[in-house]
Amino acid sequence: MEKKNIDRRHFLKASALTGVFLGLTPGSLKSNDREWVKEELERMSAPKKALGKSVMGLTVDPIDQLKVAFIGVGNRGSSHVERMQALYPKAKVTAICDIREERAKESADFLKKNGQKVAVYTGKEEAWKEMVKRDDIDLVLIATPWKDHTPMAVYSMQQGKHVAVEVPLAYTLEDCWKLINTAEETQRNCMMLENVCYGDEELWILNMVNEGVFGTLTYAEAAYIHNLKAGLFNDKYYQKWRMTHHLATDGNLYPTHGLGPVAQYMGIGRGDRFDHLVSMSSLQVGLTELSKTVDSDNEYYNRTDFAHGDMNNSLIKTNNGRSILLQHDVVTPRPYSRINALAGTKGYHEGYPSRLALKEIDDGHEWVSESKYNEMRERFKHPIWEKLKEEIAKNNGHGGMDFVMTYRLVDAFNKGIALDMDVYDGVDWSVITPLSATSVQLGSIAVKFPDFTRNNWKNKRELGMLKK
Amino acid sequence: MEKKNIDRRHFLKASALTGVFLGLTPGSLKSNDREWVKEELERMSAPKKALGKSVMGLTVDPIDQLKVAFIGVGNRGSSHVERMQALYPKAKVTAICDIREERAKESADFLKKNGQKVAVYTGKEEAWKEMVKRDDIDLVLIATPWKDHTPMAVYSMQQGKHVAVEVPLAYTLEDCWKLINTAEETQRNCMMLENVCYGDEELWILNMVNEGVFGTLTYAEAAYIHNLKAGLFNDKYYQKWRMTHHLATDGNLYPTHGLGPVAQYMGIGRGDRFDHLVSMSSLQVGLTELSKTVDSDNEYYNRTDFAHGDMNNSLIKTNNGRSILLQHDVVTPRPYSRINALAGTKGYHEGYPSRLALKEIDDGHEWVSESKYNEMRERFKHPIWEKLKEEIAKNNGHGGMDFVMTYRLVDAFNKGIALDMDVYDGVDWSVITPLSATSVQLGSIAVKFPDFTRNNWKNKRELGMLKK
Repeated sequence: MEKKNIDRRHFLKASALTGVFLGLTPGSLKSNDREWVKEELERMSAPKKALGKSVMGLTVDPIDQLKVAFIGVGNRGSSHVERMQALYPKAKVTAICDIREERAKESADFLKKNGQKVAVYTGKEEAWKEMVKRDDIDLVLIATPWKDHTPMAVYSMQQGKHVAVEVPLAYTLEDCWKLINTAEETQRNCMMLENVCYGDEELWILNMVNEGVFGTLTYAEAAYIHNLKAGLFNDKYYQKWRMTHHLATDGNLYPTHGLGPVAQYMGIGRGDRFDHLVSMSSLQVGLTELSKTVDSDNEYYNRTDFAHGDMNNSLIKTNNGRSILLQHDVVTPRPYSRINALAGTKGYHEGYPSRLALKEIDDGHEWVSESKYNEMRERFKHPIWEKLKEEIAKNNGHGGMDFVMTYRLVDAFNKGIALDMDVYDGVDWSVITPLSATSVQLGSIAVKFPDFTRNNWKNKRELGMLKK
Repeated sequence: MEKKNIDRRHFLKASALTGVFLGLTPGSLKSNDREWVKEELERMSAPKKALGKSVMGLTVDPIDQLKVAFIGVGNRGSSHVERMQALYPKAKVTAICDIREERAKESADFLKKNGQKVAVYTGKEEAWKEMVKRDDIDLVLIATPWKDHTPMAVYSMQQGKHVAVEVPLAYTLEDCWKLINTAEETQRNCMMLENVCYGDEELWILNMVNEGVFGTLTYAEAAYIHNLKAGLFNDKYYQKWRMTHHLATDGNLYPTHGLGPVAQYMGIGRGDRFDHLVSMSSLQVGLTELSKTVDSDNEYYNRTDFAHGDMNNSLIKTNNGRSILLQHDVVTPRPYSRINALAGTKGYHEGYPSRLALKEIDDGHEWVSESKYNEMRERFKHPIWEKLKEEIAKNNGHGGMDFVMTYRLVDAFNKGIALDMDVYDGVDWSVITPLSATSVQLGSIAVKFPDFTRNNWKNKRELGMLKK
């Protein structure tokens, strides 16, 4: 087939998927992008017809003691086990699984010391499937490498279990739809464990937004800026799984920590939605430079084939006209930041360090004084943190946000009320990865967000953590 | 003509202008955008054939005493007069013009008190043209409303005068090309007065970049965040000229203060160039809300037809793969910032307040200590500031940057050497306005930068202010 025809075929295909891409032309495709685009478009066209009814606001009968099983008790999962045990008897850990026997044993030993006996699964790739079939499990908590999140969540829901999954929930469009479809078909909860939504600063801002302190919201900034590059080259991540994403994808690999809270400030899925994004990456050089300095027997020694640009910026437009800047940089030598900036007609906040400006004080020309800042912190503190402050002090993961998240998750099951965050939230925030990668590959073209809520985003239901 | 044909005509026209737009499709055009796009495309296709030879590195014979005339001695121009007078006898003000007689008189009086007699032009729209024809003028300094910058600069060059023009140099593509063509045809200097390039912090960073402190540059952030909205409704700007731009244009209205220094860090026009950008605005609401509160006889009382979104973000990609985030927000109640962030493989800086992280210190995980920061400030301080520190203390406009700029401008003429910044720099930085507006209008489509240097950007000539 002639080059022109191939271009034309893709162009027509893109045009046919009305609303998926804005502005795609053959001229903007590099020849080696074509197969990739084709695959991506096929993912985009995955079934969107509902196989079940919406799980928005899903409730199940109260569960006095939530029985929890864990897949993955490594870096992150083992701390989840500890926090879950701290909630006993509201929750009880019944089974754990890790492919590494020593990690599974460490968590089992921890539980044993706390008087709990659990079933342990380990040693083979599919050990987790056996565990998930058990009938003494209400909720499966998944903290494994990213590639396993969706398959494990889908399978668990199919076995009748609710799932709580580490970030990101998915990183392909196909997987996003699989999660939506499975949750709707099985009527199970699928919550992404976006702990940052429970941060002290974030809940304070959410509260202020809800009380009108920011006026009309216009704009926000979020980020995952975290210099991880040294860890990518060693076994901090089991078999260096995290590095594989830097080889494969140029886009925003880890969008949810910054974006989740911002989406909640803006009521995404609750009266507004992400409409489209554009994304741009800088050149890749940080990993190449570091790869020259690692041991020569490291499989990433002296390589240059890292696909992922050092800094990725995405701009998101919402249906209501707001815009969001979202950044990802895990290689530049700079301090950690999620930015956490929010702009409205009456106020502005940014983090790192947390600073507030208010229209009512000198039209916001200066940051408010320390005393005014502290007054606002006190006045708009979130009742969740107030209520749990003693337990937070004892269970201080990531400044307390991990404990608050686990508490809220278990508490909702105990009470038989809807979870704070649902599968639509998790997928809306996670889908940034494939959409930004598409945009970057096609010269920063605008890419439309699929509507995972099937038009239910227009419903202005209240956010779980703001309900009285 | 049918709608389909109109779309097709524009699509073909866009495609024909190869490389001007990336990814333009009929589907992304809203019907009321079409005429606008047509005009914009016609501007894009303005003559690019050189009418004279390049003015890169242009030098003219030394001028012992530079004779300077001023068009516009209002808010900004009157302070330029004062700084120029401070350089006497290296420079001598010979004539001034302002349409407002009282403003012209104020500057004439100031000069008279300092023993200088000048010719004064005022009272009618074209008074400046008469002044520019005088033969006792080497340089015309233009500090008028934006719409007059290009016509005044072009006419002055045509009269054989060099020009120094307040920011921005131009805000349409057509005007950008007019300036380039006229400078090349007349072999006159046309420098944009981008004072921020002479800031103490900016020159320090430039010096560190030059000394390799940042390693390989990857990314930068620049901004004009300045809450001006109250001033847009009163006569701070003569006949509220600045507000007219908020009615007409949605994009980045004022790009150069943040971008100029970043362009110099990255060697734009000196081995790298801006390749393309995408731009996104948030909704407009700040001016609408304020317009309800101003006097009811104000022409902008209770209006909603402001085109310009509250926050505009543009992402720029350079030929060498670097990326730049550029922001514009003049209505949100928040403190002033130009961000001034720069990322490389060995270091990271951001402003407001100025903070530095270095790979050599804990891989940049924390900002360097105050003592290390001060050590770096001292070690890499720029010789220009060191040399002029006494004069800067006496002439402290915008923290000294205004004086340093004026000094460097006059000094280059005295010595017969090339100016620090040329017409290509000024146009490259100013052209963000029409390109970002095009991108915003077309759903954040990628827009190519014209190559105003006619391929001379590949020449790695040294930046004026870094020459020993």
